[in-house]
Amino acid sequence: MAEKSLYRYRIEPQEVDFTLHATIPALGAAILNTAGTDAHGKGFGIDALNADNHSWVLSRMAVEIDARPEQYDEYTVATWISDYGRVLSTRNFTLTDAAGHEFGRAVSQWAMIDLQSRAAVDLSWVGREHAEAIVAAEPPTDKPRKIRSVAPTERMQHRVVYSDIDFNRHVNTMRYIEMMLDMLPLELVTDPAPMRLDIHFLKECRYGQTLTVGCELRPRGASFEVSGEDGIAAVRAAIDWK
Amino acid sequence: MAEKSLYRYRIEPQEVDFTLHATIPALGAAILNTAGTDAHGKGFGIDALNADNHSWVLSRMAVEIDARPEQYDEYTVATWISDYGRVLSTRNFTLTDAAGHEFGRAVSQWAMIDLQSRAAVDLSWVGREHAEAIVAAEPPTDKPRKIRSVAPTERMQHRVVYSDIDFNRHVNTMRYIEMMLDMLPLELVTDPAPMRLDIHFLKECRYGQTLTVGCELRPRGASFEVSGEDGIAAVRAAIDWK
Repeated sequence: MAEKSLYRYRIEPQEVDFTLHATIPALGAAILNTAGTDAHGKGFGIDALNADNHSWVLSRMAVEIDARPEQYDEYTVATWISDYGRVLSTRNFTLTDAAGHEFGRAVSQWAMIDLQSRAAVDLSWVGREHAEAIVAAEPPTDKPRKIRSVAPTERMQHRVVYSDIDFNRHVNTMRYIEMMLDMLPLELVTDPAPMRLDIHFLKECRYGQTLTVGCELRPRGASFEVSGEDGIAAVRAAIDWK
Repeated sequence: MAEKSLYRYRIEPQEVDFTLHATIPALGAAILNTAGTDAHGKGFGIDALNADNHSWVLSRMAVEIDARPEQYDEYTVATWISDYGRVLSTRNFTLTDAAGHEFGRAVSQWAMIDLQSRAAVDLSWVGREHAEAIVAAEPPTDKPRKIRSVAPTERMQHRVVYSDIDFNRHVNTMRYIEMMLDMLPLELVTDPAPMRLDIHFLKECRYGQTLTVGCELRPRGASFEVSGEDGIAAVRAAIDWK
């Protein structure tokens, strides 16, 4: 049975906002980066899967940040896979400061797709072949919540450009989160209170599409729905501060 | 007399585009990050200057990338200050791959401003106090070119949001470059030929402003001018592929 894997990072100058604390997308990027690097190192990264015409796709994620670290602060991301289902695998994360205090955590659920058909494939073989990669530790918080409906009070349009897309030519996860945070009042985005983000992906958005981001603002948070020209929800999310 | 300082990096998954090569903004961010970290380590970083109500402001930069490294490639950024003028200091960079081959270089010119008046201050005292930080090595390429005028063939509007701004509440350098690249055809942005970028900053752009990015497209490159509501040029740049 495996142990949690640890990756050390430092908050770099381009990762902080004007409060000199790391932005939520910067911490989210470090979390996703850790997932990619850990899978790569263990032989089931996107590079290895691509050879078989498969890829990992993020299906849902929950991120909790209790306090945003400051520029040049060092921190450690621990990651472990707690289970492989038939359709989704669960990868967990904790974020710990230099003094060993946990200041954040995340739970992510990943599907594997066939790059030709873009359909999900049965994950059971990964569970069998990489059983030694599973760690017997529960997720550090509630699994990502499904956001069922959003009643936007505000809408923003955005055409998908080069800087928005990832290696899959889809809008990358952190760009969605940036678009959402950019619709909130500055005081809320930079509020030092603990926050939680739940995001789930229903459909891929691609280069050249014009997206509509709907925002249902609440006093201490908001729900979001991103859709393409067809109006069908592609991404839903909720962000709340305590 | 000082030596060049070396900083090691690795191309992380979130830094590559769909060609699996590092984006120009990702390499640019590593360059600027190296500047910040090196100044910080030597005692004249923004954090130290802020205590005196001063800050560094990037005035001009030239970046040349001969070949964009791939995901997980390791590389080294060497940086050195070659001179302090009265108004501008020159910081240089070379980017070298794991085999020791130089694949990129940059020359940047920085002014110091008073945070209250936002006016440039005389740099001579830094040159005197930190003379030991100057390295007797010439800039690795031509200094940043002044772009005198741009005749836009295309225009794009962008309202400055939270994700665009840095610790100074100004639009950060890499966001300007992203906005510019996003106006170019995908084939040009991902062209593997050597490229050079010259950018210079005339005026600060701030949160909430609506910017107009004008693009004068050429067969193998483009010139850009960014302006605020007053129409006065705030940033000009030229990007060219060989």
